[in-house]
Amino acid sequence: MITPHPDLGLPAPLTDNGVRVVPLGGLGEVGRNMTIIEHAGQLLVVDCGVLFPDDDHPGIDLILPDWSHYADRLDDIQAIVLTHGHEDHIGAVPYLLRERPGIPLIGSQLTLALVEAKLKEHKITPYTLGVREGDRERLGVFDCEFVAVNHSIPDALAVMIRTPGGSILHTGDFKMDQLPLDGRLTDLRAFARLGEEGVDLFLTDSTNAEVPGFTTPEREISPAIDKVFRHTERRIIVACFSSHVHRVQQVLDAAEKAGRKVAMVGRSMIRNMGIAADLGYLTVPDGVLVDAKQLRDLPDHRIVLICTGSQGEPMAALSRMANGDHQIDVGPGDAVLMASSLIPGNENAVYRVINGLMRLGATVVHKGNARVHVSGHASAGELLYCYNIVQPRNVMPVHGEWRHLVANAELAVATGVPRGHVALAEDGVVVDLVDGGVSIAGAVPCGYVYVDGSSVGGADETLLKDRRILRDEGFISVIVVIDSMTGKVAAGPEITARGFVEDDVIFDEVRPKLEAALDEAISRGVRDTHELQQVIRRAVGGWVGRKIRRRPMIIPTVIES
Amino acid sequence: MITPHPDLGLPAPLTDNGVRVVPLGGLGEVGRNMTIIEHAGQLLVVDCGVLFPDDDHPGIDLILPDWSHYADRLDDIQAIVLTHGHEDHIGAVPYLLRERPGIPLIGSQLTLALVEAKLKEHKITPYTLGVREGDRERLGVFDCEFVAVNHSIPDALAVMIRTPGGSILHTGDFKMDQLPLDGRLTDLRAFARLGEEGVDLFLTDSTNAEVPGFTTPEREISPAIDKVFRHTERRIIVACFSSHVHRVQQVLDAAEKAGRKVAMVGRSMIRNMGIAADLGYLTVPDGVLVDAKQLRDLPDHRIVLICTGSQGEPMAALSRMANGDHQIDVGPGDAVLMASSLIPGNENAVYRVINGLMRLGATVVHKGNARVHVSGHASAGELLYCYNIVQPRNVMPVHGEWRHLVANAELAVATGVPRGHVALAEDGVVVDLVDGGVSIAGAVPCGYVYVDGSSVGGADETLLKDRRILRDEGFISVIVVIDSMTGKVAAGPEITARGFVEDDVIFDEVRPKLEAALDEAISRGVRDTHELQQVIRRAVGGWVGRKIRRRPMIIPTVIES
Repeated sequence: MITPHPDLGLPAPLTDNGVRVVPLGGLGEVGRNMTIIEHAGQLLVVDCGVLFPDDDHPGIDLILPDWSHYADRLDDIQAIVLTHGHEDHIGAVPYLLRERPGIPLIGSQLTLALVEAKLKEHKITPYTLGVREGDRERLGVFDCEFVAVNHSIPDALAVMIRTPGGSILHTGDFKMDQLPLDGRLTDLRAFARLGEEGVDLFLTDSTNAEVPGFTTPEREISPAIDKVFRHTERRIIVACFSSHVHRVQQVLDAAEKAGRKVAMVGRSMIRNMGIAADLGYLTVPDGVLVDAKQLRDLPDHRIVLICTGSQGEPMAALSRMANGDHQIDVGPGDAVLMASSLIPGNENAVYRVINGLMRLGATVVHKGNARVHVSGHASAGELLYCYNIVQPRNVMPVHGEWRHLVANAELAVATGVPRGHVALAEDGVVVDLVDGGVSIAGAVPCGYVYVDGSSVGGADETLLKDRRILRDEGFISVIVVIDSMTGKVAAGPEITARGFVEDDVIFDEVRPKLEAALDEAISRGVRDTHELQQVIRRAVGGWVGRKIRRRPMIIPTVIES
Repeated sequence: MITPHPDLGLPAPLTDNGVRVVPLGGLGEVGRNMTIIEHAGQLLVVDCGVLFPDDDHPGIDLILPDWSHYADRLDDIQAIVLTHGHEDHIGAVPYLLRERPGIPLIGSQLTLALVEAKLKEHKITPYTLGVREGDRERLGVFDCEFVAVNHSIPDALAVMIRTPGGSILHTGDFKMDQLPLDGRLTDLRAFARLGEEGVDLFLTDSTNAEVPGFTTPEREISPAIDKVFRHTERRIIVACFSSHVHRVQQVLDAAEKAGRKVAMVGRSMIRNMGIAADLGYLTVPDGVLVDAKQLRDLPDHRIVLICTGSQGEPMAALSRMANGDHQIDVGPGDAVLMASSLIPGNENAVYRVINGLMRLGATVVHKGNARVHVSGHASAGELLYCYNIVQPRNVMPVHGEWRHLVANAELAVATGVPRGHVALAEDGVVVDLVDGGVSIAGAVPCGYVYVDGSSVGGADETLLKDRRILRDEGFISVIVVIDSMTGKVAAGPEITARGFVEDDVIFDEVRPKLEAALDEAISRGVRDTHELQQVIRRAVGGWVGRKIRRRPMIIPTVIES
């Protein structure tokens, strides 16, 4: 396996006959997928998504791919190819377009509709080019062919990128449901044809590479949905991702059969399903859909609600229902169907919601007690099929944490791809395809770019470190006013604390010590504000460490008056 | 099912012929198990454990049961019965003994040794009474008989508590491994005998009640351990809980067979396994155990390390190895065996460790890719056996979140316990057993008691709310010095921020607005410090909300000079 050396430097310029692949997100993590393909001085971007922060990034709203290395080459970008409409593939498009408006967006009809709706919120109207499976478009030097793939959102595409330096097949996110609900298969005949033509580098979705066997077909969750519809006496509340058109379709169909009406709850659910219905990806049975306001006129046993919040998001409708803090007052006889995966890290929040709903008397059907969700990604068995059909010359696993990438690489090797033709890369690592072989040519800087309120890129590791200290320890503020004439303390020290466990009364103990330290420093002739602040920091920090065994942030302020 | 009404008040005093059961922890959560049993004015405590905080409790070290309702009745406590030596059953003992030293501790030999080691760190020597399975001890009015149960730590006990008001059987944590590694079965013959005598109230471990079937026997993980020993070329590093004597025994035995030496790493691992070996619960094969320092003289293929850190704890040896920040420099050829469960909420931390170790080239064998751990708790199938053997009159599920308690209650009902004889309670809910029937008699106050550094009970919800704001938003400090003679601003406003995303330069915009607001207030004759602070808070808070769309904590300080 070709793996990156820890001390990689910037790569040498690409040779004329080479193709360069640089992942700027999604390799070594799950999210913010973005890959730069380079040939003959031109760039093609595949996907431009966001990563959702975890507890290690307090206060952060979103994490973007880091395209700073390409900041002065944005004009070289021929297009952004979007493989499908999930946030981790399209979410960062507004931020890239802010830096260079007018980069063409290429994608399927549904994908473009979803990204356009998102851009509208950012007041951006993009230049777009809609494509379908089978289409072939020339984007600068990149000759792109689009291939249907099956995923947990309709209209997903893989892309074959032909260049004079070699051909790259990028799967995007995909699985290989052989009996998909909408009949749209991952086009293995196209994969076979492309493989016969010759795929020099195959970029494949690693998300489920560790999972043995095959991903369960979507239709196998219908029995669990039907069971809920058969057994529920009062309302049925379904929580799922707001992009999961097929799941919503299954619920609409079940509701029609059961003579129930369905209302959507939540801005993103209403928006996305509206788009999907308008474009024909969602078929709403006649008269089934109602407005949430109309529910009041219906008896409970004729009501279905579809909402977001399946990950325990505290502000979502479902969490508020679980807290008894929503106009829908969940109670005995109601059933809640959580028809989604449980994203690692969200367990506590999700179980809090489940416990809350059960405490109110509802029945909760979830991944833990019924088959109500299947993954959108190909498992190991499917990936093996893929490798054997495509028979690529070189492989580069994409989309996943390191453990996923390694597992995917081993699958490629198991099908006969030589280890020396499998490149394991992380964000920023530069993989060059030259004369039919891959190598790691260097690395470009690739950090986290944080969206924090209206700030993009303003938050950094120092800020997060401060927030982690404030979170765990709080702070102690010490203010001293120095008389600018005499150089002596005119007021203070004023000591206050927030997020700090002890009562302010405890500072009575340190105040004389601090006063003595200040007097000593002033009598030595110290007048510099920064030096006096150091005196305060040392006196208070040392005392609190010894006395309380904590390390709050110490904020000394010396003011001259 | 008998369930608590949301607005329960304090219970009426207990009738003479009644027994009262009050859980002060462990019901509605996983951890801090503690139950108070009351009869004839006397109290018996079963377990006294800690709960480990999650992200919702920033900066908190431990969460204790809330025994404040019993603060003036501590002298009524006859004894604390400890069912086994896990932290969530013994960890709060030092804090209770601080309030009333001398409460007798009753438990098995290993349990008492572990709690004594813990108390030694708190400089407390307890009064203890060691018991074995089959023993019967009178503790005030409580006639206690101890029964062997099988769990993920040796020497666990259930306890039958006979009182003139009725008999209560409390399982503690348990499972029913039918081929346990140490041969010590959960004593179903004793359960049968007690059932024939009559169990009026059965308190059973709910942790795995949602899991169908039977918990896999411990010995079925041996093949996975053996495989690691067969295939690893260099070092083997095993991470597990520091109390899991049986798992460590399996590793020691495999090491002996493979001709490897074992070193323990980490204070709690060394301490607990030392205790277990001294008392004969761990059998160390001759010459297998070495000191970590001696590893330098051994070739890699003869080394095994056993350490903690299986939950991704950032300061544990394993996390530091994964970061390349430990004297053990993990690399290709090494294998890491993570032989423990993954506690919900720890996923991100654990996967971070796994990815880090794999990036260094190590093979990582974990729950996700091999059978290297089994649970310590009885699954639904085992609980059914239990109910059918004991045939209790009344049931009260304990130990678990609400969803676990409900699942356990349904199992009792499925075996024929009438719904009206199953009490679902949460922490603080008072369950009375009177004349052979249970009822919910009220609730006692039962909040979280936080240990935060050296403070016990000082942290409260206000403090945590402050920390959550500081974590997500940071703070802006505004200091103004007022001349006490003139009432006018003598210095400032000095505006600084920490944990706040924008550069301080942004405050140039609000400073004139703030100055104007202060001038206006002062010219209106405002002199009160608190009122002026309100002026600052409004001016700065309003501006930052509109401008940055964030809500940092605003800390105004007005000093008179």
